[in-house]
Amino acid sequence: MANAKKLINLINRIFVSRGLSPKHAMISAKALINAELVGAHSHGLSRLKMYCDRIDKKVINPKPKIKIKNISKSISKIDADNSIGFVAADIAIKKAIDNAKKTGIGLVGVKKSGHYGLSGYYAEQATNKNLVTMIFTNAPPAVAPHGALKSLFGTNPICFGTPTGSKIPFILDTSISMINRGKIRVAARNNKKIPEGVALDKNGKPTTDARKALQGVQLPIAGFRGSGLAWMVDILSGVLTGGNHAGKVKDPFDDFTGPQNIGHLFFTFKPNLFVNDYNKRIKNNIKTIKALPKIKGIKEIMYPGQNKFKRLKINSRKKINIPSNIKKDITKLVSKNTILKY
Amino acid sequence: MANAKKLINLINRIFVSRGLSPKHAMISAKALINAELVGAHSHGLSRLKMYCDRIDKKVINPKPKIKIKNISKSISKIDADNSIGFVAADIAIKKAIDNAKKTGIGLVGVKKSGHYGLSGYYAEQATNKNLVTMIFTNAPPAVAPHGALKSLFGTNPICFGTPTGSKIPFILDTSISMINRGKIRVAARNNKKIPEGVALDKNGKPTTDARKALQGVQLPIAGFRGSGLAWMVDILSGVLTGGNHAGKVKDPFDDFTGPQNIGHLFFTFKPNLFVNDYNKRIKNNIKTIKALPKIKGIKEIMYPGQNKFKRLKINSRKKINIPSNIKKDITKLVSKNTILKY
Repeated sequence: MANAKKLINLINRIFVSRGLSPKHAMISAKALINAELVGAHSHGLSRLKMYCDRIDKKVINPKPKIKIKNISKSISKIDADNSIGFVAADIAIKKAIDNAKKTGIGLVGVKKSGHYGLSGYYAEQATNKNLVTMIFTNAPPAVAPHGALKSLFGTNPICFGTPTGSKIPFILDTSISMINRGKIRVAARNNKKIPEGVALDKNGKPTTDARKALQGVQLPIAGFRGSGLAWMVDILSGVLTGGNHAGKVKDPFDDFTGPQNIGHLFFTFKPNLFVNDYNKRIKNNIKTIKALPKIKGIKEIMYPGQNKFKRLKINSRKKINIPSNIKKDITKLVSKNTILKY
Repeated sequence: MANAKKLINLINRIFVSRGLSPKHAMISAKALINAELVGAHSHGLSRLKMYCDRIDKKVINPKPKIKIKNISKSISKIDADNSIGFVAADIAIKKAIDNAKKTGIGLVGVKKSGHYGLSGYYAEQATNKNLVTMIFTNAPPAVAPHGALKSLFGTNPICFGTPTGSKIPFILDTSISMINRGKIRVAARNNKKIPEGVALDKNGKPTTDARKALQGVQLPIAGFRGSGLAWMVDILSGVLTGGNHAGKVKDPFDDFTGPQNIGHLFFTFKPNLFVNDYNKRIKNNIKTIKALPKIKGIKEIMYPGQNKFKRLKINSRKKINIPSNIKKDITKLVSKNTILKY
């Protein structure tokens, strides 16, 4: 069990010891611990060792020269120089926010980035600045295109965020895979089974064994529809930006033969472009939907992001539980760390 | 059986007899027949009587004063004055294309519109002009939000289109409902069953009876994920634009108490904003995915829009089959039509 602030500082120092600037290390540490606090453990501390390994093996650049080029006042492109994904995404969403604040609309394409954690974490930066946002990123092969026997698409999340006129933003951050790859990884690590109907083994047979699923194929949501959405995300984040695509994004845990070169796309705009009472309208929208008759056993109809926000509130007051295998990782990472010895 | 060109002219004259300008009538007739030619019969001639009824009952305005206001060189808003949806959408996508051609990016919000047929039909206008596009529209209640016992979201399609460097654009046009409401309507009309697991009856029980499904609830794809995507589309097309939302869009077939006030959002941008070899990149993307090993029985991995394009090619050479009930509709609509008597 550990205090969130202390953990952030510890991870910050681990990243600094790996050569990241204090600023980049802090951005990364905060993003990782946020994932823990919202309950997305698959995107939290369980990835710390992977990020450090990739820096050690020189496939994440700890001292990136990130290039930002403005195509217009609304549109910018970023070459992240193989930075850790958190830093590339943080710079990109801030640029997209600036552009939208100036012109009403912002579009930022990023190439040569890596896994950046949760899309919703960046969406929240935009909603906090009273902007609507859509965010796309691709990921290593996990889901088979409809009709194919081999995985190629990543879990390619679709992320949409909007302010709601209340403290809790509407943030949809949904993988187009039946199950998040990170969740399968956590299940494999903890010897737990995965649900039926979400994955096939390497021979194309349904499986509930997490380890077999990692070697096999995850199924897209809704067959050809989900496959089409995954393809869309691959085009928007990879083909369009100059990032890797069509299955070329390397698995960050298993493949150290080169940088991931993930692409991201950040789209932002003001909510009051077409109406002058957006806050009132979205409040009414949510209120109307929440007032619908509910299925037996459902206490409240929740909008996307609401549960995550509640978990963040609750968990921020508690200590973070660190599984023993991750504790070992952290101990090793710290002991390797000469700066921390002093 | 009828020739497509002749049918377009016939429908054009029917719409003109209802008070539409020749230009608006032709836009509408072409969109309706395109739906037939791509095999989307639920969005074709089966809706002709509905459109005419709505004009007759003054809930579609045949002589709209459509107002276009430029918010910036990239962003425009349109008040469609309760025009037939085809016309509002046609003006909007052309505006979004113009804006993107000028500034790299276009965003057009439309309110006071109606059902416009297939989103993909408008996406194709953008891809034909070498632009990438995303299009959102809401629709009358059909799908229950996750946890709710009552339908509220429309089938709210997500549409994405991009040029491919070949003749056939990539056009994903996918409802977030397990089944298209129009398809249930066609099944009900033809006394056919619908698949299992796509709809509930009015008591919340699974049904394969198309008529019972129309009184009940359609299920979203992928549970809470699909429900979240439907909610996103309702916000983007309804809350944002000034259109109806949160279940207020009227069913065009059943509810003549007022205009639908559907909202649409058209987003367009140039494919070469971030890279200078987009066509080459997307060709490679598609080629790589098509070359994957295939599931037994699958001849070719198709990208979204490819099948529809093939059907259009084939059907354009053939005559259109008109079911007898629709033939009766057309005969009545023509006989009511004083202009056609001369």
